[in-house]
Amino acid sequence: MPILNLTMTKEDGGATPEQKKALIAGFTNVFADVMGRGAKTMVVTIQELDTDSYGIGGETVTDLRKK
Amino acid sequence: MPILNLTMTKEDGGATPEQKKALIAGFTNVFADVMGRGAKTMVVTIQELDTDSYGIGGETVTDLRKK
Amino acid sequence: MPILNLTMTKEDGGATPEQKKALIAGFTNVFADVMGRGAKTMVVTIQELDTDSYGIGGETVTDLRKK
Amino acid sequence: MPILNLTMTKEDGGATPEQKKALIAGFTNVFADVMGRGAKTMVVTIQELDTDSYGIGGETVTDLRKK
Amino acid sequence: MPILNLTMTKEDGGATPEQKKALIAGFTNVFADVMGRGAKTMVVTIQELDTDSYGIGGETVTDLRKK
Amino acid sequence: MPILNLTMTKEDGGATPEQKKALIAGFTNVFADVMGRGAKTMVVTIQELDTDSYGIGGETVTDLRKK
Repeated sequence: MPILNLTMTKEDGGATPEQKKALIAGFTNVFADVMGRGAKTMVVTIQELDTDSYGIGGETVTDLRKK
Repeated sequence: MPILNLTMTKEDGGATPEQKKALIAGFTNVFADVMGRGAKTMVVTIQELDTDSYGIGGETVTDLRKK
Repeated sequence: MPILNLTMTKEDGGATPEQKKALIAGFTNVFADVMGRGAKTMVVTIQELDTDSYGIGGETVTDLRKK
Repeated sequence: MPILNLTMTKEDGGATPEQKKALIAGFTNVFADVMGRGAKTMVVTIQELDTDSYGIGGETVTDLRKK
Repeated sequence: MPILNLTMTKEDGGATPEQKKALIAGFTNVFADVMGRGAKTMVVTIQELDTDSYGIGGETVTDLRKK
Repeated sequence: MPILNLTMTKEDGGATPEQKKALIAGFTNVFADVMGRGAKTMVVTIQELDTDSYGIGGETVTDLRKK
């Protein structure tokens, strides 16, 4: 039962339900194809954080997006 | 200072404050009983994600609940 | 399918297989008792880090244990 | 590309955008100074949980704050 | 800069370097295809735990594999 | 009791005990300075993964280092 945690910034209102479905299906297929297990048991969690709470190279994504 | 992170789906409005108290106390007791330490220092975090953001076997829990 | 990640210091050679079994069973029972679900599906991971890689209040656990 | 995940209780309305900026910049500087890399690539995420969802020594932070 | 953490059991000696390459490439492609970003910046970490340290439904994967 | 998890690649034999001390002390000071709490209670964990198990932009760090 592999576990896959996705963390990303919440942008443009955040990922749509359809996008989340596609991410969950896509990630699970990749794992099952490569490892030959997990197709029925893989757990995927998706977490979206606002851009104030996400930093890259010492700056918030909020500020980076302004550049 | 052991750390215990619980991630689960937010269902039926999510876990109540009483349930969270019981989970935190229960998990801490189990650790202290088994390991003989941590009763005063264990940190427990509880995170609830909506069922669109939680996948099992390639499908969202939202869709699985519809079956 | 709730997920529970335990992170702790590796001390005295680390937790024994029996202790890990007891932690996994105990945590799962607590969750199932409190939330009424997860008894068959809960995923628990246990991670042990050496005391150099674990800090509390600005000091490594290695140094704290020397006090 | 080191990753730093900060988890803390959300208190007094939570960390302000300015505090989050200072945390992201400060953490990144510490890493770059000590390890000599990561100044441009470090990823920092900040997650705030309510005090009901955060336990220390078997009690919720909500209850601990009442003492 | 999305972050994807994969945690799985270490079985049959663990994932090979080629499998890890395929997982990293595959996951990143899925994200970029679905979200239209992250192809150059996605961070993927892969963590393998021994089957004693991994529980499902209250039992260790070590014991489950014996059934 | 804030929690800070650092994940990075293990390079050149990995971070030395002195570097880990400096990271733990430095991160804790930054948090205490900015948030006015946590100086005595902050928990920091440091996790180093080999470069095969770490991907950026779809490639392993092992391959990126060869370029």
